[in-house]
Amino acid sequence: MKVNRMEAFSDGVLAIIITIMVLEFKVPEGHDWHPLTDLIPKILSYAVSFAYVGIYWNNHHHLLHTVHTLSGKLMWLNLLLLFWLSLVPFSTAWMGESDFAATPTALYGIVLLCAAISYTLLQRAIMKQHASDSAIVLAMGADMKGKISPLFYILAIATAYLNAWVSCFFYVLVAVIWFVPDKRIERALKISSM
Amino acid sequence: MKVNRMEAFSDGVLAIIITIMVLEFKVPEGHDWHPLTDLIPKILSYAVSFAYVGIYWNNHHHLLHTVHTLSGKLMWLNLLLLFWLSLVPFSTAWMGESDFAATPTALYGIVLLCAAISYTLLQRAIMKQHASDSAIVLAMGADMKGKISPLFYILAIATAYLNAWVSCFFYVLVAVIWFVPDKRIERALKISSM
Amino acid sequence: MKVNRMEAFSDGVLAIIITIMVLEFKVPEGHDWHPLTDLIPKILSYAVSFAYVGIYWNNHHHLLHTVHTLSGKLMWLNLLLLFWLSLVPFSTAWMGESDFAATPTALYGIVLLCAAISYTLLQRAIMKQHASDSAIVLAMGADMKGKISPLFYILAIATAYLNAWVSCFFYVLVAVIWFVPDKRIERALKISSM
Amino acid sequence: MKVNRMEAFSDGVLAIIITIMVLEFKVPEGHDWHPLTDLIPKILSYAVSFAYVGIYWNNHHHLLHTVHTLSGKLMWLNLLLLFWLSLVPFSTAWMGESDFAATPTALYGIVLLCAAISYTLLQRAIMKQHASDSAIVLAMGADMKGKISPLFYILAIATAYLNAWVSCFFYVLVAVIWFVPDKRIERALKISSM
Repeated sequence: MKVNRMEAFSDGVLAIIITIMVLEFKVPEGHDWHPLTDLIPKILSYAVSFAYVGIYWNNHHHLLHTVHTLSGKLMWLNLLLLFWLSLVPFSTAWMGESDFAATPTALYGIVLLCAAISYTLLQRAIMKQHASDSAIVLAMGADMKGKISPLFYILAIATAYLNAWVSCFFYVLVAVIWFVPDKRIERALKISSM
Repeated sequence: MKVNRMEAFSDGVLAIIITIMVLEFKVPEGHDWHPLTDLIPKILSYAVSFAYVGIYWNNHHHLLHTVHTLSGKLMWLNLLLLFWLSLVPFSTAWMGESDFAATPTALYGIVLLCAAISYTLLQRAIMKQHASDSAIVLAMGADMKGKISPLFYILAIATAYLNAWVSCFFYVLVAVIWFVPDKRIERALKISSM
Repeated sequence: MKVNRMEAFSDGVLAIIITIMVLEFKVPEGHDWHPLTDLIPKILSYAVSFAYVGIYWNNHHHLLHTVHTLSGKLMWLNLLLLFWLSLVPFSTAWMGESDFAATPTALYGIVLLCAAISYTLLQRAIMKQHASDSAIVLAMGADMKGKISPLFYILAIATAYLNAWVSCFFYVLVAVIWFVPDKRIERALKISSM
Repeated sequence: MKVNRMEAFSDGVLAIIITIMVLEFKVPEGHDWHPLTDLIPKILSYAVSFAYVGIYWNNHHHLLHTVHTLSGKLMWLNLLLLFWLSLVPFSTAWMGESDFAATPTALYGIVLLCAAISYTLLQRAIMKQHASDSAIVLAMGADMKGKISPLFYILAIATAYLNAWVSCFFYVLVAVIWFVPDKRIERALKISSM
């Protein structure tokens, strides 16, 4: 089992996940703009999820390139990550359909949180293959984004029951943190967390 | 992050987009030819979209081959393009289902217009990696198709509210412009635009 | 545009076509074997279509390996073939759902016939790249299967209105002809057609 | 026809199978946690099937790496395996939807049993390409997992009509047997089967 094959399989699954989300856009019954306004929350949540899966696809690639030897453990942690990401289309659709009701919005965060935890587990298992003072382990150790994201997900889950906008703000915030090129945002986060 | 991996991911997404459109052909209730006549507008709009995604797949490949170094910006512009193309199945289905009603036909053009703008943004970002007098920049600068297509999309969106046939004529026209081998049509367009 | 990329894209589309057919198996309402008996015609038609797409995938690969230079024409003929094959899931589902009613069974043959014609057009365009006395052209010229299949499809379309079993016999027959290793069946066909 | 292309096609089909299963999670009508509790059996059965397809993907890869020469027979046995695995999403959904009713739970086992038999046929056909005293044939000959799995599937099918929990225990057991790293579990199985 070579790493590049695990990568190709993961890429295939991520490409399918990112694309089948659009299957949730059912053809509206009317023929004017009115039914489209009902679609707006669905399209917004789709756009956020599209960005999330795109971010995972990008980071996952970088991560796999640091793998030394592929073990059964890595393969199963990778499948665990894909499992949680495969639930993103469902939770995205429910959140959009419910117009950001409390429980679907919280569930969306739970799925993202589980995906983030799986990603961290995968990352740690890969780090163990490297010397503890290697450049890669030091780089990953300083991984502020990975540490802050779960916190923001938990805040999003909690605030989903108070105010959907606050909750969604956290989801978009995490996406933006990962989206924006690395150095500046990391510096900003370090300063703001001092 | 290597270019060929971004290409493989994009290819996967485009292959899924072009194929899941057929999922919109629900099995008709009757068992004779009659229900198929209701399907004709859906099949026509599917055929046009199939050609569009095929054209994007082909051009996208040529474009990516000119990439020097892959940046985060290119990756996100590429995802933006895939995002708009991923909305093609939905807008195709709505246009077909509505038998080319005004708003769905206009929306189809808006989605294609957004995809075309994303493509242009991606193209410009890639061009910046090349010297301004390089052959590739000069070739892209003379890109008549890329400049005329958005114009035709806007005409199609506007005429969707006047006459569906005129609107669809513009959609088919753009597909034909891109479909027909380059040189002759470009020459024709240059002459007609003098 | 390299041949192996057209092949990868085609493979992706064929893999999706062969798999999304199962999405037509809606979860039955009851919980005993009874609703499954209603599924039997659907499963049978799925099995035949699965074999057809598998055969096309295999032959398509061999065919593309004989391509000298990839032209726009070849690319579009390839997309035309994929277009018709992409309609196989729909026509399979309708044929199964209708329990092999006349029109859906005939439509199934029409889709297969159009795919076969597209395949022949693609094959001819590729043959033109080779000298007329080359081994590959001579081998393809003797292509009995390619010549007999359309005939059997037309017979299947015609007999769909007389007897579904006769029609399905022709569909299965074509699949078997392509399925069975080459030499013996070709010899048999030559003898039977003398 | 090269092995690595059959592998790429199989990977594509397996990636689609593992992902389209989530399409069975229809967006619930309510907006609280209540409708999610109805989803629990579906999510559990999805998790088991996800693990099964992941296991097949992994083993299938190892198996194909032992292929000497690709014959038509191998290709068709491979398609037969993919055919049965493609029915996993349907039987998973029915089992989950029915809350593990007897017949859907038994059908799930029948599909897995047919997939296991297809896999064994493929394995045997590949083994015939090797000398009977080669390391690979000896290793496969001692394949306890492959021999025990069908037995457990049959037990699961039979017990589906007595107690769903017992039946599901066998399904999970087979997944665990394949999931856990090889040596220890094989030793355990050898001891327990003495």
